Amino acid sequence: MTYTLSQIAEKLQIDFQGTDKQIDGIHTLSEATPTQLSFFNDSKYASQLSTTKAAAVLIDKAHAPMLPEGTIALVTDEPYLKLAAASRLFAHDVTAHRSEPICGNGCDIDPSIVFGKGVTIGDNVTILAGCYIGDDVTIASNTLIHPNVTLYHGTSVGERVIIHSGTVIGCDGYGFAHTKTGEHVKIYQNGNVIIEEDVEIGANCTIDRAVFGSTIIRKGTKLDNLIQIAHNCDVGAHTLMAAQVGLAGSTTLGRNVVMGGQSATAGHLHVGDFATIAGKGGVTKSLEGGKTYAGFPAIEIKLWRKMQAALMRLVKSKQM
Amino acid sequence: MTYTLSQIAEKLQIDFQGTDKQIDGIHTLSEATPTQLSFFNDSKYASQLSTTKAAAVLIDKAHAPMLPEGTIALVTDEPYLKLAAASRLFAHDVTAHRSEPICGNGCDIDPSIVFGKGVTIGDNVTILAGCYIGDDVTIASNTLIHPNVTLYHGTSVGERVIIHSGTVIGCDGYGFAHTKTGEHVKIYQNGNVIIEEDVEIGANCTIDRAVFGSTIIRKGTKLDNLIQIAHNCDVGAHTLMAAQVGLAGSTTLGRNVVMGGQSATAGHLHVGDFATIAGKGGVTKSLEGGKTYAGFPAIEIKLWRKMQAALMRLVKSKQM
Amino acid sequence: MTYTLSQIAEKLQIDFQGTDKQIDGIHTLSEATPTQLSFFNDSKYASQLSTTKAAAVLIDKAHAPMLPEGTIALVTDEPYLKLAAASRLFAHDVTAHRSEPICGNGCDIDPSIVFGKGVTIGDNVTILAGCYIGDDVTIASNTLIHPNVTLYHGTSVGERVIIHSGTVIGCDGYGFAHTKTGEHVKIYQNGNVIIEEDVEIGANCTIDRAVFGSTIIRKGTKLDNLIQIAHNCDVGAHTLMAAQVGLAGSTTLGRNVVMGGQSATAGHLHVGDFATIAGKGGVTKSLEGGKTYAGFPAIEIKLWRKMQAALMRLVKSKQM
Repeated sequence: MTYTLSQIAEKLQIDFQGTDKQIDGIHTLSEATPTQLSFFNDSKYASQLSTTKAAAVLIDKAHAPMLPEGTIALVTDEPYLKLAAASRLFAHDVTAHRSEPICGNGCDIDPSIVFGKGVTIGDNVTILAGCYIGDDVTIASNTLIHPNVTLYHGTSVGERVIIHSGTVIGCDGYGFAHTKTGEHVKIYQNGNVIIEEDVEIGANCTIDRAVFGSTIIRKGTKLDNLIQIAHNCDVGAHTLMAAQVGLAGSTTLGRNVVMGGQSATAGHLHVGDFATIAGKGGVTKSLEGGKTYAGFPAIEIKLWRKMQAALMRLVKSKQM
Repeated sequence: MTYTLSQIAEKLQIDFQGTDKQIDGIHTLSEATPTQLSFFNDSKYASQLSTTKAAAVLIDKAHAPMLPEGTIALVTDEPYLKLAAASRLFAHDVTAHRSEPICGNGCDIDPSIVFGKGVTIGDNVTILAGCYIGDDVTIASNTLIHPNVTLYHGTSVGERVIIHSGTVIGCDGYGFAHTKTGEHVKIYQNGNVIIEEDVEIGANCTIDRAVFGSTIIRKGTKLDNLIQIAHNCDVGAHTLMAAQVGLAGSTTLGRNVVMGGQSATAGHLHVGDFATIAGKGGVTKSLEGGKTYAGFPAIEIKLWRKMQAALMRLVKSKQM
Repeated sequence: MTYTLSQIAEKLQIDFQGTDKQIDGIHTLSEATPTQLSFFNDSKYASQLSTTKAAAVLIDKAHAPMLPEGTIALVTDEPYLKLAAASRLFAHDVTAHRSEPICGNGCDIDPSIVFGKGVTIGDNVTILAGCYIGDDVTIASNTLIHPNVTLYHGTSVGERVIIHSGTVIGCDGYGFAHTKTGEHVKIYQNGNVIIEEDVEIGANCTIDRAVFGSTIIRKGTKLDNLIQIAHNCDVGAHTLMAAQVGLAGSTTLGRNVVMGGQSATAGHLHVGDFATIAGKGGVTKSLEGGKTYAGFPAIEIKLWRKMQAALMRLVKSKQM
């Protein structure tokens, strides 16, 4: 999908000045290419304004002069709401059409499977009944998909992956812009999900597609059941997550992280390599690797154990 | 479904005296109409006895005289177990029959979709593969239902709603009467679910049908993935819930409530307009609107932060 | 599936000495029969070595002499990784084949249902659209299965059971052996799930098959939605679990246990008859029956309430 910048400006009811350009997508200030639109909505990214390569940026009047030459300012009082409107222009066209996949050798695919267009499947792939495989999904060789799995459009699944029943991959990330009167306007999630090789995903998990770019589950990671991975997370290789874990948006895990059952993280943080989060732990800030954490807010488990002991003493002391 | 009161009394093995009446349903003391049966099982509702409009009430002998004239007492030692038996009489007949929906213009519906009888669909509705749409469901115009969604009978979905894959709407609320020997007898859930306009519901959510009346998700509310809404909840307009949130039965939220990931509420409480519950918070009593709460039991977040600080000082103090 | 011990040893690249035997499965030291293979990986089970009835045991050199006469030691430095390799030999062959079930009288089964081979169904069973019923599943009479349920191979469902939509029963338990370089090798889960009579299971639950033997949900138990039951759990009769509860592996509950919403247990522990765990509680050790517990780590609720009160005093005290 491409639009000219003047087309976009017109649809967004923004005054456009400058040379017209072809725009083929949207991304953040730091990641946008010279054919992409970007947006500025949060002063913590102000330092990225001068170096963005974006073709144009949705931005308030005060910050517009900070953009580099060659990047066009689309000036607006509400850049995030305009982003929402722009995201819709690039949204995938969801329809109930069906198509035939390109399929490798030795596949074993139930006749009930519904495929979108442009699906590519490797060799020796097994897909059981009731699955839906959306447009432009790729599934590499020797992968096994159990019944009633849904892969939304653009999902990429690596070799020797196992996906258990009821799991949904590539559903929309949770992103909205908010009006002054308290309504929420959908930011279309135009990224995708990448599942690398040797990953196993349990039953009834949900892995959201990225708003831009990709949500990634790296090689060898094993997810238990009922796990939520939000948009734009990057789950490091050989990570283990027990059931009912939740990661909020844009959080990144290093390799060989271990998360106990019902533990969770806030968004936009990093957990280092070989860190362990105990069950029910709630991570509220980035954590160094190689250590074990527990509690909510999650702290080092030794400290957490001391806290539990202190609490017990407190409750049992006569003085209180 | 209608029965005469004498038929119901006979099936429930209760002695019936008085004028016979046609009964077409069951509801609470405060909500029952003159053609409905009600029940009295909890002394906190005793004040409602004298004003109920119910045709008849399942009630113990001691409280029976408190009913108004014209309301018949069906006297029993076990009103809640009798309610369970009565609820079965009015239960929907679950069968695997299929039927054709009444469909508006411009719909895009995968041929795999199974419809029950009496389904009505508006214009420009898209339903992807593997969905099940139960009896008497209505889906308004411009709504999009992703693959493998289940809508139980009687569900009502508004305009411009988006429902993501694997979500189940209208499944039975969790309601049982308990015998003296510890068995649980199902209270059939004969209400429904209403999803208002502009709601978006993430993947693998569960929204239970009401036992009587409706579970309601009001306009503009956005639910993330793996969320549980129990029977008879009323979720106010423009509410936001992050993933893995759970609401217990009969809880009501005002408008523009925000609930962080893995937060939850107990049942039968109210959260006021514009309240925010932080991630992992557990609400155990009704909360005033306009404030932010955290922790379990949930308290105002300022207080909760002080508590965390005090705990840290406690664990680090030499004296302990 | 059977192999000779020498075949297994060859596939596992283990030196085999002694009389060859037919091996038809794998189990723990205490449960293995004289035609099964076992393994020794954890010194806390050392006392079971001398009494095992296993045909052969994957074991390190130092402990091998502790095995009884007639049990062959398959000596290896990495018994758990070898177990993982052996488990694959006995894994069910997952394929997309379809077959016809043996069906009793009065069943009402949607034509979309896909059955594996060897399925047996009793009388008056109702199965709605989109379900998948794997190989060798048995479903007893008068059971109702709502749309889009997945029963993996070997699942056994009792009489008068109700299973709500999106629930997955018999998916793989979460079991891996770990290499020295941090990769995880799948331990194939060759047990099954048994659902006894009069159980009701809510929507989008996940109940894992056992690694060996069975995961069991005993009669009359009622599960709400989005519940995770891990491999080898044994949930006692007439137990109640509210939504989003999680049990970790091999935990056993007595009868009439009550677990509030979002509560959970660690693995390999026991909760006694008639115990109650409040919502959000986290059970970290075995609990005596007949009492009510709360908090994380879960303690008796009276103590927990005192702790909350002490915390409140602490945060409100001038001294802090």
